[in-house]
Amino acid sequence: MLHWLRGYRRAALPGDIGAGVVVAMMMIPQGMAYALVAGLPPVAGLYASILPPLVYALFGSSMTQSVGPMAIVSLMTAAAIAPLAAPGSALAGVLAAQLALVAGGVLLLCGLLRLGFLASFFSRPVMSGFTVGSSFVIAWGQLKPLLGGTPAHPHVPSALLGLGSLLLLVLARFGLAPLLQRLGLKKGAADVVAKLAPMMVVLLSIVLVAQLDLPALGVAVTGPVPTGLPQLNLATSPAHWNALVQPGLLIGFVVFLISMSAAQSLAQKRGEKLVSNRELVGLGAANVASMVSGGFPVTGSLSRSAVNFAAGANTPLASVISAVLLALALVLPTGWLALLPLPTLAATIIVAVLGMLELATLRTAWDYDRGDALAWLVTCVGVLALGVEAGVIVGVVLSMGTLIWRASRPHIAVLGRIPGTEHFRNVERYAATTCATVLFLRIDANLFFGNVDAVNERIEDELRAHPSTRHLVLVMSAVSSIDTTALFALSELNASLRTRAVKLHFAEVKGPVMDRLRASNLLDQLSGRIFLSTAIASDFLNHPPEKDD
Amino acid sequence: MLHWLRGYRRAALPGDIGAGVVVAMMMIPQGMAYALVAGLPPVAGLYASILPPLVYALFGSSMTQSVGPMAIVSLMTAAAIAPLAAPGSALAGVLAAQLALVAGGVLLLCGLLRLGFLASFFSRPVMSGFTVGSSFVIAWGQLKPLLGGTPAHPHVPSALLGLGSLLLLVLARFGLAPLLQRLGLKKGAADVVAKLAPMMVVLLSIVLVAQLDLPALGVAVTGPVPTGLPQLNLATSPAHWNALVQPGLLIGFVVFLISMSAAQSLAQKRGEKLVSNRELVGLGAANVASMVSGGFPVTGSLSRSAVNFAAGANTPLASVISAVLLALALVLPTGWLALLPLPTLAATIIVAVLGMLELATLRTAWDYDRGDALAWLVTCVGVLALGVEAGVIVGVVLSMGTLIWRASRPHIAVLGRIPGTEHFRNVERYAATTCATVLFLRIDANLFFGNVDAVNERIEDELRAHPSTRHLVLVMSAVSSIDTTALFALSELNASLRTRAVKLHFAEVKGPVMDRLRASNLLDQLSGRIFLSTAIASDFLNHPPEKDD
Repeated sequence: MLHWLRGYRRAALPGDIGAGVVVAMMMIPQGMAYALVAGLPPVAGLYASILPPLVYALFGSSMTQSVGPMAIVSLMTAAAIAPLAAPGSALAGVLAAQLALVAGGVLLLCGLLRLGFLASFFSRPVMSGFTVGSSFVIAWGQLKPLLGGTPAHPHVPSALLGLGSLLLLVLARFGLAPLLQRLGLKKGAADVVAKLAPMMVVLLSIVLVAQLDLPALGVAVTGPVPTGLPQLNLATSPAHWNALVQPGLLIGFVVFLISMSAAQSLAQKRGEKLVSNRELVGLGAANVASMVSGGFPVTGSLSRSAVNFAAGANTPLASVISAVLLALALVLPTGWLALLPLPTLAATIIVAVLGMLELATLRTAWDYDRGDALAWLVTCVGVLALGVEAGVIVGVVLSMGTLIWRASRPHIAVLGRIPGTEHFRNVERYAATTCATVLFLRIDANLFFGNVDAVNERIEDELRAHPSTRHLVLVMSAVSSIDTTALFALSELNASLRTRAVKLHFAEVKGPVMDRLRASNLLDQLSGRIFLSTAIASDFLNHPPEKDD
Repeated sequence: MLHWLRGYRRAALPGDIGAGVVVAMMMIPQGMAYALVAGLPPVAGLYASILPPLVYALFGSSMTQSVGPMAIVSLMTAAAIAPLAAPGSALAGVLAAQLALVAGGVLLLCGLLRLGFLASFFSRPVMSGFTVGSSFVIAWGQLKPLLGGTPAHPHVPSALLGLGSLLLLVLARFGLAPLLQRLGLKKGAADVVAKLAPMMVVLLSIVLVAQLDLPALGVAVTGPVPTGLPQLNLATSPAHWNALVQPGLLIGFVVFLISMSAAQSLAQKRGEKLVSNRELVGLGAANVASMVSGGFPVTGSLSRSAVNFAAGANTPLASVISAVLLALALVLPTGWLALLPLPTLAATIIVAVLGMLELATLRTAWDYDRGDALAWLVTCVGVLALGVEAGVIVGVVLSMGTLIWRASRPHIAVLGRIPGTEHFRNVERYAATTCATVLFLRIDANLFFGNVDAVNERIEDELRAHPSTRHLVLVMSAVSSIDTTALFALSELNASLRTRAVKLHFAEVKGPVMDRLRASNLLDQLSGRIFLSTAIASDFLNHPPEKDD
């Protein structure tokens, strides 16, 4: 904990300060916008941007991760709360904080149980399909606030402001960085400055609203924001808590997957070490902190973390600085926030999620592995057709299905002797000679419940294909572990082969596997023998010294 | 379909007839008892024992599987229906039939999607813990009907009848077969005759009820049973259908797991081939047939199938014969069934599930693999504490967690050259020499989303441990496939190493893997080279012909 602070080098300070300022400027509009996506008052997004990154800096392992509100997690928050409370209501705020507590509790528990290995749960195509589908849902949901009404019946002043903001933001996104570079800025600096455009557009829109008195024309604004920090209130009914358990679990899961994929890609750039179990604890604590400060579920965001990284962040001190700046913004008079027009916030959301609408992963998968491309499409369509929560479940089912399917296809080779040598090789790839009564099968996978059926089936197929077999030798050179299910299966195979007058032998069993097998009674019951090598087995079984079989 | 009938040999007939008669005699009390477990009128158990095995004989692939009501599936049926309808009500019957339709539909769909590989979803310890927990719940639930009241306040005539039946059944279970053997019967025949004891006890109890007019004393009996076959009625509200989707899915899943584990153990005994996708279709069609005939979810039962097997069944004709006999029993006057006392049925249930309360799996796992023993305990406690549905989910989560955990631990070895040879081996196991600037890592697993994070982490660890590395050579001799996620990861590793002035090379890439990689742009971007063998890579990188590095 805080190991980055103990070894802090002064040289890291300028980068951390610069990144802290940039990220704070990015977080103000982003936090408020994502609070709107979550169906909460915009100020909740600021609440969720202060304590969580501070707490994450204490417990997390990433040097450059920026923890706070994030579009997809906000969408999931909205989906969880929608059946229970009206958007923007006081109850919605309380439920959102509870949801952060549930998600944070799940993450902390997983961290204590050392379940960090779950980070590799989703394949890249499933994650990408989920992200693209969710981004589309988010952008679609912002059309109404952007236009102040439906596309068929827009509110003209709102639509002008919203589309104007959108135009400015799109220009800034695609044109500002190249422009600044042509004006002499370095590429990295130009990119960082371009990321401040949303803050500039928001400030500009506030000036416009104040000067033209746009609320009088019917343009929606955020309205009065309470000064200071929020009060904690979790007094809802048990029915509310119950309804939040499942969404909280799914949100905790998605928080972890999104944050890990962001943190990993940044850690790899500098060869930094990421500890997944500490990430679980860091994210869990950050979400609990979000609950305490009246926020909603938070996670590490790739777009914000990449800006933090590019702006020169060296340690979590950058996040601490940006959190302090945000807290100052809330403690100072917040009257200016009241005039922030919602169409402009909608525009910042749409531009932010445009960046997540990438099809490169789908294209690569399509060329490289059609099955992965299908997984992308099914997940994306799942989100679009069934909603974001069902989309997560679709992703889980697809990932698990793929895992089991892969596990259930172990490689098994029939071995033959390379004439004149001691070597035994796959008869399908080498000119190797076999013997009618002795069948050698090499199992190229660890034996466990996920593949014992497949191994059994293959053994039976080979026995049918080699009906004169009297000795089956399983070559275990690639088997590093045998679980209890596989132990039972081997035991039953031995018994079944015995009734069919086939002896079961093992060859080249690894030391640790042998040690484990000695703790079972498989070796006592074995109809055959254990051979050190395949060659020894072959010599012995073809010229048995005993009267046998 | 029906391939067993086309090739039917007359020699198989006596065995099939004998087994058909025995199984029918076993099915009458068992079917009625399991209908009670499901919260249905006993006759529903007979309905569920006729059409389903006939349909399974048409589509299934097992030669000796006996499909019909089964204790655990009945318990799950009761759990699904309990919130919606009173036990024994007409609505409960309708909902049970609907549930069979949902479960059957799920199974058929999985069969059409060729998801048979899901049969290896549960590890043996998880399955055993689930079975033991469920058996205990079932036995516990039968205490009240056994005693006609609570243990503190039993209904004396009912309790006498129930405990008397229990005593007879326990004696028959443990003493009858040895007794018959001592009287000269063969072991197999004695076992089969002993399995008819429940039917004998049921008949005896009916005679007692009739002679002593026990219903007048308050002993509960099944009551009038409609003659003939049931009428189909699925007219319930959409809310009912919705409430049955999730339990139907879980039941379909459990039906498949239970049936496959029974069928596999029998198929192995005779070296018969089981086709898991055909099993899905057979079980799905059997459940739809159960719906049509007013039954409830059915599955293949190990205890009944083992009797079928032991009684000499050679083909599914045995099941056809037993179904015909059961249909005859229903078409003939069924007045005798009305007098069947519930305490005796409760006793048959308790004795039936006693056979499933086995701790041998736990004991073996405890000695062999403590993690597997823990999985057993967690699943069993899950069923006892949270109910049978939650128990299935606990099992799924445990199995998936184990799968991901295993996948996330690929074996990776640092290789060195055995001095004076062309051979490269794991430096931890052989006296092999390494070179400061070239690091050889052999990856002993297929690369996919489940292990890319772990592989990446290990590579970074080794690079930290070998800071003077300028060339990283991944030895791919054991890698048979690379999925899209791993392709991205390799591409990012290449880019990240390039910024750190480390070149990435591959050696011993398998032909099919190479073909796939050529469809991607990884090879174009690669900072290093592809080498045919590790030795060639070593020679080249230590004595580069070009000015390099």
